[in-house]
Amino acid sequence: IGGTHSKAVLVSAEGHILAETDGPCTNHWLVGVDNCINGINDMVQRAKIKAGLDPDTPVCSLGMSLSGGEQKAAIQKLIDDMRERYPKLSQSYFITTDAIGAMATASDYGGIVVISGTGSNCKLVNPDGTQVGCGGWGHMMGDEGSAYWISHLAIKMVFDARDNLVTSPHDITYVKKAMEEYFQVSDLMGMLPHLYRNFQKSHFAGFCRKLAEGGDAGDALCQHVFTEAGRALGRHIVAVLPKVHQDLFSGELGLPVLCVGSVWRSWELMKSGFTQVLSEAQARGYSHFQKYSLLTLRQSSALGGAKMGAQNAGASLPLDYSANVNMFFSHTFNQ
Amino acid sequence: IGGTHSKAVLVSAEGHILAETDGPCTNHWLVGVDNCINGINDMVQRAKIKAGLDPDTPVCSLGMSLSGGEQKAAIQKLIDDMRERYPKLSQSYFITTDAIGAMATASDYGGIVVISGTGSNCKLVNPDGTQVGCGGWGHMMGDEGSAYWISHLAIKMVFDARDNLVTSPHDITYVKKAMEEYFQVSDLMGMLPHLYRNFQKSHFAGFCRKLAEGGDAGDALCQHVFTEAGRALGRHIVAVLPKVHQDLFSGELGLPVLCVGSVWRSWELMKSGFTQVLSEAQARGYSHFQKYSLLTLRQSSALGGAKMGAQNAGASLPLDYSANVNMFFSHTFNQ
Repeated sequence: IGGTHSKAVLVSAEGHILAETDGPCTNHWLVGVDNCINGINDMVQRAKIKAGLDPDTPVCSLGMSLSGGEQKAAIQKLIDDMRERYPKLSQSYFITTDAIGAMATASDYGGIVVISGTGSNCKLVNPDGTQVGCGGWGHMMGDEGSAYWISHLAIKMVFDARDNLVTSPHDITYVKKAMEEYFQVSDLMGMLPHLYRNFQKSHFAGFCRKLAEGGDAGDALCQHVFTEAGRALGRHIVAVLPKVHQDLFSGELGLPVLCVGSVWRSWELMKSGFTQVLSEAQARGYSHFQKYSLLTLRQSSALGGAKMGAQNAGASLPLDYSANVNMFFSHTFNQ
Repeated sequence: IGGTHSKAVLVSAEGHILAETDGPCTNHWLVGVDNCINGINDMVQRAKIKAGLDPDTPVCSLGMSLSGGEQKAAIQKLIDDMRERYPKLSQSYFITTDAIGAMATASDYGGIVVISGTGSNCKLVNPDGTQVGCGGWGHMMGDEGSAYWISHLAIKMVFDARDNLVTSPHDITYVKKAMEEYFQVSDLMGMLPHLYRNFQKSHFAGFCRKLAEGGDAGDALCQHVFTEAGRALGRHIVAVLPKVHQDLFSGELGLPVLCVGSVWRSWELMKSGFTQVLSEAQARGYSHFQKYSLLTLRQSSALGGAKMGAQNAGASLPLDYSANVNMFFSHTFNQ
């Protein structure tokens, strides 16, 4: 369950994926509890039908991994409401965060997950299972390095240049024009409904795609905001670095960093900012931090959610972790 | 019409205030068009009754000065809706921004208005009536130096310290405790409903009062956020400085800066940041910028709104400007 899309995977007891279905954003913070529950039920029921199963037979376990899945009272209410409203949905329920669901898809040994999709979040999972988080508070209190944040940063630069409040480091022409086209506005005043009355986080964040196109085409301001995003995401890793268990540094990959979310597709644009922040932190004295590798998921993190749900219901789903991840970048620091 | 309170003044043709009434926030961006219109009608009708006038007789002119009063289509809709829904309210209608309403209360010669209440905004009005703005885009795209922004900055520092994302420049103990008390939460997770599902800008901004108390009592982090607010408000003035007409510098007060909104009550906490930013800008080469004075209104800026409304309806309200303002700070730069 992300800030823009959702995905369901139906898995057999042997760990085989029987069906996958997609749905809209079902984050309860963004769309409300009712839309959230209805959206989840709809995806799961469609998955049962797609797999040729009886939709009236509950699945054994529904494991959910969702952004905003940390507030205990809120997730208990979600589960209670689902049980009551859709008794044929599942026998047992389990909710974890999108970060932990992603990590469970990739490994049972731990690492750092950095999510940058509509929003952003970072979570360290140590080999002993302990977790340390950074971010994940949403667009009103962070989301640094996310698609929302990148879009906002670029648009804010257009506003600030218009106001003569802050001088933009680069020409704003491309970003301003792309903004006017994407939001269908002719001036900055026209942006107000998009920011307030009709604000939709996922639509606002979607502007990031236009910025990525601009960056790929060589626009300096677009490249600048992605470099800043790389820095911001790097800082999330640096924030949890003091709590990383020594063993996590010493594998073949060095520190494993699982990168989740569509913003990572623009890795080339973020690379310089990201690697710089990590190198600076390493130079400040983490002598056991000699190498890191960035991994991406080949399977939806819904799979990890399903695994944890099964575990919670007393079963274990065998997953082939090596088939679930790709390494796309690795860096060894100079000695 | 502010982001937290509203005020109505009923003025006779001779410029005498017949009645004043108060109301809640009636900013249409924040409370919606219906609440806005109902709130305004209610205040004006109560003012008529308070002045011993027949509430069924429309006033000659209703002049409104409101935050968010710049989008032409939106304010025309407000006026059309008021006319249709409350035909006994007024014969003519006029809407301007809170900044311009404040300026019209203080002077007919111009100056710079800097609003810092729930939100913030800055407007230069030159002697020839031309205007140049900076800010006023609301909390999603600015509001720098406002009560909302100060509250957010302080709370963000608590989040960032918890996440080890940014090291706070000062001890967060007071701010964290004040936040937990003001918002009635026991941890950061508890803040999420205040930021999203139940977000109310004016309530969020109200936390600024606790920070002002902390600053007055000597808490370094509270003092820090107000110094930053002073800097931010100073930068708004610097942003419009290149467009200030030469004549505005040369009066007895030097550049007149009209300071509106409750955050200015904490001037002593903001002073060092504010004066520093202005001195730096002056040193960068505004040789005709030798002096500035900060003024505050002794009357509600609704009075200026009423004056402009009357003007728009073909009448002129004689106002004694000197009785409407107080000077609270003046600075002459070293030659």
